[in-house]
Amino acid sequence: MNTDRQVRPKARLPRGFRDRTAGDIAAEWRMLETIRKVYESYGFEPLETPSFEYTDALGKFLPDLDRPNEGVFSLKDDDGQWLSLRYDLTAPLARYVAENFQNLPKPFRRYQVGSVWRNEKPGPGRYREFTQFDADTVGSASPAADAELLMMVCDALEALGLKRGEYVVKMNSRRLLDAVLQSAQVNDLQRGTVLRAIDKFDRLGEAGVRALLGKGRKDESGDFTKGAGLDERQTGLVMELFTASAERYETITAVQELQAVRSILTVNRYGEDRVQVDTGIIRGLEYYTGPVFEAQLKFPVTNEAGETIVFGSVAGGGRYDDLVARFTGQQVPATGISIGVSRLLSAIRQRNEMILPPLVIVLTMGDVAHSFATAAELREAGLRAEAYVGTRKFGDQLKYADKRGAAIAVIEGADERAAGKVTLKDLKRGAELSKTVESRAEWLGERQAQVTVERDRLVPEVKATLTRGRW
Amino acid sequence: MNTDRQVRPKARLPRGFRDRTAGDIAAEWRMLETIRKVYESYGFEPLETPSFEYTDALGKFLPDLDRPNEGVFSLKDDDGQWLSLRYDLTAPLARYVAENFQNLPKPFRRYQVGSVWRNEKPGPGRYREFTQFDADTVGSASPAADAELLMMVCDALEALGLKRGEYVVKMNSRRLLDAVLQSAQVNDLQRGTVLRAIDKFDRLGEAGVRALLGKGRKDESGDFTKGAGLDERQTGLVMELFTASAERYETITAVQELQAVRSILTVNRYGEDRVQVDTGIIRGLEYYTGPVFEAQLKFPVTNEAGETIVFGSVAGGGRYDDLVARFTGQQVPATGISIGVSRLLSAIRQRNEMILPPLVIVLTMGDVAHSFATAAELREAGLRAEAYVGTRKFGDQLKYADKRGAAIAVIEGADERAAGKVTLKDLKRGAELSKTVESRAEWLGERQAQVTVERDRLVPEVKATLTRGRW
Repeated sequence: MNTDRQVRPKARLPRGFRDRTAGDIAAEWRMLETIRKVYESYGFEPLETPSFEYTDALGKFLPDLDRPNEGVFSLKDDDGQWLSLRYDLTAPLARYVAENFQNLPKPFRRYQVGSVWRNEKPGPGRYREFTQFDADTVGSASPAADAELLMMVCDALEALGLKRGEYVVKMNSRRLLDAVLQSAQVNDLQRGTVLRAIDKFDRLGEAGVRALLGKGRKDESGDFTKGAGLDERQTGLVMELFTASAERYETITAVQELQAVRSILTVNRYGEDRVQVDTGIIRGLEYYTGPVFEAQLKFPVTNEAGETIVFGSVAGGGRYDDLVARFTGQQVPATGISIGVSRLLSAIRQRNEMILPPLVIVLTMGDVAHSFATAAELREAGLRAEAYVGTRKFGDQLKYADKRGAAIAVIEGADERAAGKVTLKDLKRGAELSKTVESRAEWLGERQAQVTVERDRLVPEVKATLTRGRW
Repeated sequence: MNTDRQVRPKARLPRGFRDRTAGDIAAEWRMLETIRKVYESYGFEPLETPSFEYTDALGKFLPDLDRPNEGVFSLKDDDGQWLSLRYDLTAPLARYVAENFQNLPKPFRRYQVGSVWRNEKPGPGRYREFTQFDADTVGSASPAADAELLMMVCDALEALGLKRGEYVVKMNSRRLLDAVLQSAQVNDLQRGTVLRAIDKFDRLGEAGVRALLGKGRKDESGDFTKGAGLDERQTGLVMELFTASAERYETITAVQELQAVRSILTVNRYGEDRVQVDTGIIRGLEYYTGPVFEAQLKFPVTNEAGETIVFGSVAGGGRYDDLVARFTGQQVPATGISIGVSRLLSAIRQRNEMILPPLVIVLTMGDVAHSFATAAELREAGLRAEAYVGTRKFGDQLKYADKRGAAIAVIEGADERAAGKVTLKDLKRGAELSKTVESRAEWLGERQAQVTVERDRLVPEVKATLTRGRW
């Protein structure tokens, strides 16, 4: 063993990744299942593209990238071609559509849920692998395609238990933005920096955005971010996006497009309480060409620092009419919306804890084969039940049951079996009684939480105990 | 556009990866859900580790690897550390257990489903990304832990619709193998080649394995694989694994271990019809230390070449008592079984097609907002319904509905709306009638498959049509 010790690897989670356990996973499955049902009911069908795409096929559309290849995990394949892990589900969809265009129904409407990877500096709550749930319509330039996505995302949020008024879906248009940037004479070199600045309004506020539009901004850590170099007049025109009413821009074609979406929504009673035009919405990805969307949660939640905040964005998307043309040269209209699953889940879970069904543990008193049979009997009655498969003694088995958060321990020793009996220990009640009677002997609490019944009454007695304990 | 053309990427799926569409995905979801329910009912809880692990933490346990790093997708992180995509779900579990040992209940029983990646030469039906569904028990040396996994996998296969006798779970022991290899005086340098040779018995048969144990074997393509170099007597002793009865080895400790598992299974009525000892079972991964398992399907299926074959292995696993010790230096007993999801799914689907619910498409006659409202009404009645969101005219919309495999097209033109009516077109019946009456005018078939009803009878009439068409 001494020689081994020198080459032993350290057991450590890679930087920026995370392990997730039962509570988180069960909650996420239920959430994905709920969204999936809504999307399927609209006739969207699932698609799964692989984790990898050829790097050139994926393209470079991530925001905030100063160096090429930053933001993406890439490696060279045996045959010399570069592969990258997908950073979203939209770029792979464009590849899929371009490759299979002839065989697809047009419009092609698919949903996809899966991991995406970003090779970025990790931070608190910011991981390098996370889940997105996307819906996209490819092959329709109609505002109906945009309106449908907005209605569908509203339905999904409500199916997850959000009430009218607790969320809002905002829309804007990149073309509106283009018109404003043109009127402010923002040049091509400044454009990227200006878009990123506008997109940070929620985080940095007016002063922060103004600084980034002008000379630049120093953040709390002292890091300086160079600005776009706009002058006062240009900055003022851009900042109107956050202050002027939509009417200010109503002569612009893009706004008429948004109004076409709006009027479909209105007939279907998705009013301003659910979908609103907001000219300050940008969305970071570079490939949007028309309307852009962002779903926001409006109710207060508690952040990691214990502060009460408004949760903000949980989904985003927009129209990207040029993405398929990258491959084919032929423009294919397309629009989509992507839910940030982890973000939405953490918000939903603050309201509504979702847990696994209660667990029954059959302790093993010398004869594990028999314990398995008892556990199987409980499972057949629809319960979640396990036999203890370790090799420790009685007391350790009870500690195991506590650590597992089990509701009931089933005890069937030799005496009980001979008498045709079984003992049930209500672990929750046992814990409560131990607390309240701590001055007296601990066994008193233990005893009161324990009952011995006829063996053939096992299933009804377990069910009755679960009901009493509100497990 | 001419300048663009020169830099356009080609839309192509990366080598060895695949896109999957609605039918495949829906079937897989249902399968995973079924297995998940069985595993949870046994008290196994889900765990999710990330796609990446540090390369040193993952270790090198893949079979058939001649060069270091082959088989794994790896890349260097910004901070100089090497990351690899997981090639299975067991090595990451060992890292997780080593990292969180103090806080876990012992035994720790978890299931995990997810993608794994192998950087191998792709072939027909052999992909570089695929799904595994694993269950593992860490911290119990008891044969109960092994027996539980075998019973659970039987239950899962039966929950998926397999009948008693259509599958068998085989078990063997690496220690039995060690005893046999020792008696045959196989040395450490030969060991790996010998194990790989034995593992190929199903594919290559007796002559092929004998060749690989001896001088080597030339395959159909003319490629020569060097053998282990055993002489006749050694080869004979090893080949007894496939011919001798279990009794031949009954003095060996490993066989007594297998008998302990067997006796637990027998009490729980998992007999020889479901779980069998088979001394020819190896399992390729290098980390197994004791019992090994393999679930096989025994019913015939049709392969890609149209031949009828027995399907073979769909799950495998075993005991790996040293994997956590790689990190901690302390041995932790562990055992697990992994289902190859894609393989099992393709077998199950040959028996039992699983499809999405029927689809209703509301055509758009000038007023898409109204079509949305009609589709929403159908969805509220529990149906899968979509409004056409494209911009093509009536005939193209019907073609779209056909391509989507829709059951019914709902037509609500201006005339119908004025009269308070709606037209339903039964697309399946329409297609059938068009076929049978092809000598007469096509419109006859079209007409017979079409019915105009009162608008407020929409939902019941759609449901009645679906029932009639057995959609």
